[in-house]
Amino acid sequence: MISFRNDYSEGALPQVLQALTDTNFEATCGYGCDEYCARAAHAVRSRFACPTADVHLMVGGTVTNLTAIAAFLRPYQAVITVTSAHINVHETGSIEAGGHKILCADAPDGKLTPQMVRRILREHQYGKNEHMVQPKLVYISDATELGTIYTKSELTALRAVCDEYGLYLYLDGARLAPALVAKGNDLAPEDFAQLCDAFYIGGTKNGLLFGEALVIVNDALKPDFRHMIKQRGGMFAKGRLLGVQFLAYFEDDLWLTAARHAVVAAQRIARAFTQAGYRLLADSPTNQIFPIVSNEKMAELAKTFIFEENAPVGETHTAIRFVTSWATKDADVDALVHAL
Amino acid sequence: MISFRNDYSEGALPQVLQALTDTNFEATCGYGCDEYCARAAHAVRSRFACPTADVHLMVGGTVTNLTAIAAFLRPYQAVITVTSAHINVHETGSIEAGGHKILCADAPDGKLTPQMVRRILREHQYGKNEHMVQPKLVYISDATELGTIYTKSELTALRAVCDEYGLYLYLDGARLAPALVAKGNDLAPEDFAQLCDAFYIGGTKNGLLFGEALVIVNDALKPDFRHMIKQRGGMFAKGRLLGVQFLAYFEDDLWLTAARHAVVAAQRIARAFTQAGYRLLADSPTNQIFPIVSNEKMAELAKTFIFEENAPVGETHTAIRFVTSWATKDADVDALVHAL
Amino acid sequence: MISFRNDYSEGALPQVLQALTDTNFEATCGYGCDEYCARAAHAVRSRFACPTADVHLMVGGTVTNLTAIAAFLRPYQAVITVTSAHINVHETGSIEAGGHKILCADAPDGKLTPQMVRRILREHQYGKNEHMVQPKLVYISDATELGTIYTKSELTALRAVCDEYGLYLYLDGARLAPALVAKGNDLAPEDFAQLCDAFYIGGTKNGLLFGEALVIVNDALKPDFRHMIKQRGGMFAKGRLLGVQFLAYFEDDLWLTAARHAVVAAQRIARAFTQAGYRLLADSPTNQIFPIVSNEKMAELAKTFIFEENAPVGETHTAIRFVTSWATKDADVDALVHAL
Amino acid sequence: MISFRNDYSEGALPQVLQALTDTNFEATCGYGCDEYCARAAHAVRSRFACPTADVHLMVGGTVTNLTAIAAFLRPYQAVITVTSAHINVHETGSIEAGGHKILCADAPDGKLTPQMVRRILREHQYGKNEHMVQPKLVYISDATELGTIYTKSELTALRAVCDEYGLYLYLDGARLAPALVAKGNDLAPEDFAQLCDAFYIGGTKNGLLFGEALVIVNDALKPDFRHMIKQRGGMFAKGRLLGVQFLAYFEDDLWLTAARHAVVAAQRIARAFTQAGYRLLADSPTNQIFPIVSNEKMAELAKTFIFEENAPVGETHTAIRFVTSWATKDADVDALVHAL
Repeated sequence: MISFRNDYSEGALPQVLQALTDTNFEATCGYGCDEYCARAAHAVRSRFACPTADVHLMVGGTVTNLTAIAAFLRPYQAVITVTSAHINVHETGSIEAGGHKILCADAPDGKLTPQMVRRILREHQYGKNEHMVQPKLVYISDATELGTIYTKSELTALRAVCDEYGLYLYLDGARLAPALVAKGNDLAPEDFAQLCDAFYIGGTKNGLLFGEALVIVNDALKPDFRHMIKQRGGMFAKGRLLGVQFLAYFEDDLWLTAARHAVVAAQRIARAFTQAGYRLLADSPTNQIFPIVSNEKMAELAKTFIFEENAPVGETHTAIRFVTSWATKDADVDALVHAL
Repeated sequence: MISFRNDYSEGALPQVLQALTDTNFEATCGYGCDEYCARAAHAVRSRFACPTADVHLMVGGTVTNLTAIAAFLRPYQAVITVTSAHINVHETGSIEAGGHKILCADAPDGKLTPQMVRRILREHQYGKNEHMVQPKLVYISDATELGTIYTKSELTALRAVCDEYGLYLYLDGARLAPALVAKGNDLAPEDFAQLCDAFYIGGTKNGLLFGEALVIVNDALKPDFRHMIKQRGGMFAKGRLLGVQFLAYFEDDLWLTAARHAVVAAQRIARAFTQAGYRLLADSPTNQIFPIVSNEKMAELAKTFIFEENAPVGETHTAIRFVTSWATKDADVDALVHAL
Repeated sequence: MISFRNDYSEGALPQVLQALTDTNFEATCGYGCDEYCARAAHAVRSRFACPTADVHLMVGGTVTNLTAIAAFLRPYQAVITVTSAHINVHETGSIEAGGHKILCADAPDGKLTPQMVRRILREHQYGKNEHMVQPKLVYISDATELGTIYTKSELTALRAVCDEYGLYLYLDGARLAPALVAKGNDLAPEDFAQLCDAFYIGGTKNGLLFGEALVIVNDALKPDFRHMIKQRGGMFAKGRLLGVQFLAYFEDDLWLTAARHAVVAAQRIARAFTQAGYRLLADSPTNQIFPIVSNEKMAELAKTFIFEENAPVGETHTAIRFVTSWATKDADVDALVHAL
Repeated sequence: MISFRNDYSEGALPQVLQALTDTNFEATCGYGCDEYCARAAHAVRSRFACPTADVHLMVGGTVTNLTAIAAFLRPYQAVITVTSAHINVHETGSIEAGGHKILCADAPDGKLTPQMVRRILREHQYGKNEHMVQPKLVYISDATELGTIYTKSELTALRAVCDEYGLYLYLDGARLAPALVAKGNDLAPEDFAQLCDAFYIGGTKNGLLFGEALVIVNDALKPDFRHMIKQRGGMFAKGRLLGVQFLAYFEDDLWLTAARHAVVAAQRIARAFTQAGYRLLADSPTNQIFPIVSNEKMAELAKTFIFEENAPVGETHTAIRFVTSWATKDADVDALVHAL
């Protein structure tokens, strides 16, 4: 069987694993107070051009999202996002477990628009009606759950509506690297620091054993964040493992190299499906591809390939998901291309 | 500087790191649904003689405690423990953040007794008074925060009081391995499975990069626990890293070998302090030693050694903490012994 | 100005106020442990034919909902309801503040159907996928937020789907009395006890100073509920005030008499709007009427009458809400009828 | 049987009940947005000389405490108080259910001192250690749970330590009126507004049917508080009932007159016990008296009088509690005096 199930099936990029091995017997402070974490944070601030940002190296995406949102919001404040958002569907209600309602807009391509934000604000009387939650934080992800990406003008427009209504803009970058190297992307790393109040740079899905780097740009959101990390269970005892990995990740832009490999493979798959006459659920330029196939074809492919079913399309077809990563082998992509 | 700061300063035991390296490029399911995790869970069940227990491999101690307690209790139920308990002091209120009150007894040696449990139950009218929380779960750790250990008769007596009043007994085994190899220990692994409703076996403080194995013995506490793990942010994407590490940990009882190294070193330190005329805060047979020294002596030691201050003892003295691990070097212990 | 703003604008029904006055100087136990509460609970059990149900007299609707749902669910479980549900829109995220996600279906008439429940269950893989919340409780209200009511066959069908999937059925009866006396209603009080796991009988919106009677039928949901009431702040010190009021409320079915007055008045208003050529947003047989009027007409009516805007209908029209109560004066209805 | 069980056994002061009756058929806005609430808030601000304070009329003490503390604190912040505090013992863990740890000092007379505050701060490293909760709010009550009262110099000293460390001072005034009229009191109403960040003036235990007036003095704690009230279930639909009652309460200082009656009665009881040779648990000048009697005497008294057991004193004696109120009859006090 050839797996296109997800982008976190393997371990770490060789350079990352080597760095862990090289430093294994050093004794350092725990909890991320070591020199490696300090240097990794510096690397993040440099690469994203945000010299005064706070950088917190976190273990995983869900704990990053739930900690950040719990820290940023007051109890009666709510999140605005799209229905398909990871926090709305696939994090087992972790945001609500932290006490906050999620307000959703349906977005066929997984992307939130200022119009959607405005409608939710209007429906909630701009936070002035005490019988309703007060929308306060916009959550988006880049790339989105459907593999699509935001343009600079789109992200700038979301920033504008956030500024107009005093909302925070928080970006989940679990797959930020694939977005940055995708065709059509015009956002540079520094743009995220300019336009978001906080965002995180994913590592787990792009070649780290584990790790996400949360960047808090807005000064108002910085105080006591480490208290929140510890309270929510996200403080990693051997914190330097995160620092060591992220240092290797940013060395020579390894993160973008790794993502490029994944995206090239995925786009080969996308082209193969398209040329074979299949429609794609969304126009994804990143490392997740959602072809729509007949249920018979799905069954046939499933004999050789591992992939996920995304959603039924009518009675007879299904959107299926193929994901590539830094570790995807050309031969596996070849096999899939030939099977179409 | 020579560090006795803690037992999670270094990376992983060589065998553990090797196992991670050997399996790095394999592709497996995520989230702990892989073969390595299945085999590690089997190894835990075998070693602790609890063939029907559920085993969940978790990332760290705090997230294990907060997830387990949130899962086991109803909203109005409370935890009984000692004032010095890790969950009471050093987890930033994570249990309360999950909604539960902690009821504490002062225990000079860090060990909870049935008398303490009974007193707290009596004060809370055995859970019958709706104006008070209902005590429901007893939290202990072995070894304790002061390095002391429970005997089999002590743990059996706690089980008895729990049975009498319908309480759960949950044991935090962040340092279970050092307890098991300590002088005076008469508890075998299978005893924990026999006497506790749930307990966890620490890995992070005994040579894993990270990882704790939660064992749920009581059937009533098993359902849907993975929902809780995911919701609280503790589900590890590349879950097999936990399985791979724990497999190596239990191979040839590496976990006990590693702990034995730590305990031998710590007991050399204890003897050296005692023979030099210092008193110890608690009679710890494990890998944490708490000598009481004058503040001058503390300052002198601090020129060469890294250790933590535990608590002031009167105006002029301080209890300081020395911790050893699987990675502690004999030469470093020698240096400390000579400095006394 | 003539107010049709809501059904809790005035104080209490004269009989209720008299009962409070008559008993004012008696000394009783606090917290609802008095004889009046016991007798009121008995009256509820008799009237709803549920001799073994637990009855808790609560202060208000929101605290009833948030306490019941927090008590009934485990942390990862979610509520199924309609988008317009009171708990989803008008309780400031109190269910989420208690940790639970609300899963919504769009229902034009405010009524949940088994099909909607099934779809949400299917989307959440019937609670088996640990990355998603587990749907567990169906929340409905009768009358609904749009004034519509459930028939016996509809409620029975919801019960069936709940039984099929192990869901709880919880009914918010803030306006249960108006529903029961509405044209088209074929549900008797005892049906609610037969078909729901728990439900509450509203008093505040039908002539009590305050008070809702929560009825827990399902034995599994009964234990320690008073602990939950106290913890969530809903335990009323002078609890007998609730007992005294509810006793008067059920005496000679005063609750239905009061509701009948409100419904007759509302239906006169509905007829007047319809005969004047206006469309109604929903076909409400109860005491809330939602005519759709041009914005000019709305402005004209607002010179004399107090009502709420419900929702814009296109660019030029608005659905407005008229609510009647036990205290509505015929002359006020006359004035409105004549103004159309 | 003659009851000295508590001060909320009866209904309302006659003037209060009359005011409710007089206004019963008026129609007003709901949720406290009516003219009566506005005038009552004005009366509070005038009487306590805090013209810019926010005043929120709440239904009961527990919901006031849990809402205020949830609103004032960030998730990782904790409360400092005494072990006997109402929120620590008798509110079923409502503060922890809101996510916050309570840090306690043992205080024999129920009064918190700056020394206690300083010790707790020191133990928590002044909030700088992210592994511990951050103490942020000081909770006291006046009168205390033992009936004792704070002097102006004591309250001023607590304010000073709060200022020094950036803590909020919150005062639970469930029995503020009895404290104000007690012998030895030198605090005037305006002192509370000067010295506290927020406090509440109890009504339920001093002659209202229900109601507590929360006064928020500190501007930083004011925003969006009504969102919090609604979310926590404390927003009263027929809010004007609170306004009407508090207006009557402050008319001609009825609140102090009512409290004086209670305190005079209690002090007669205290003198009677003292003169009969009994010791009192605390030197209470207010309306709660805690004589220590032999268990035989307790049994004898229990044949005629209703009172609560407070705590065992050794093996053979018990501290019992007698509470008086605005409604206590002289004849009942006479009977008790004669029984000693």
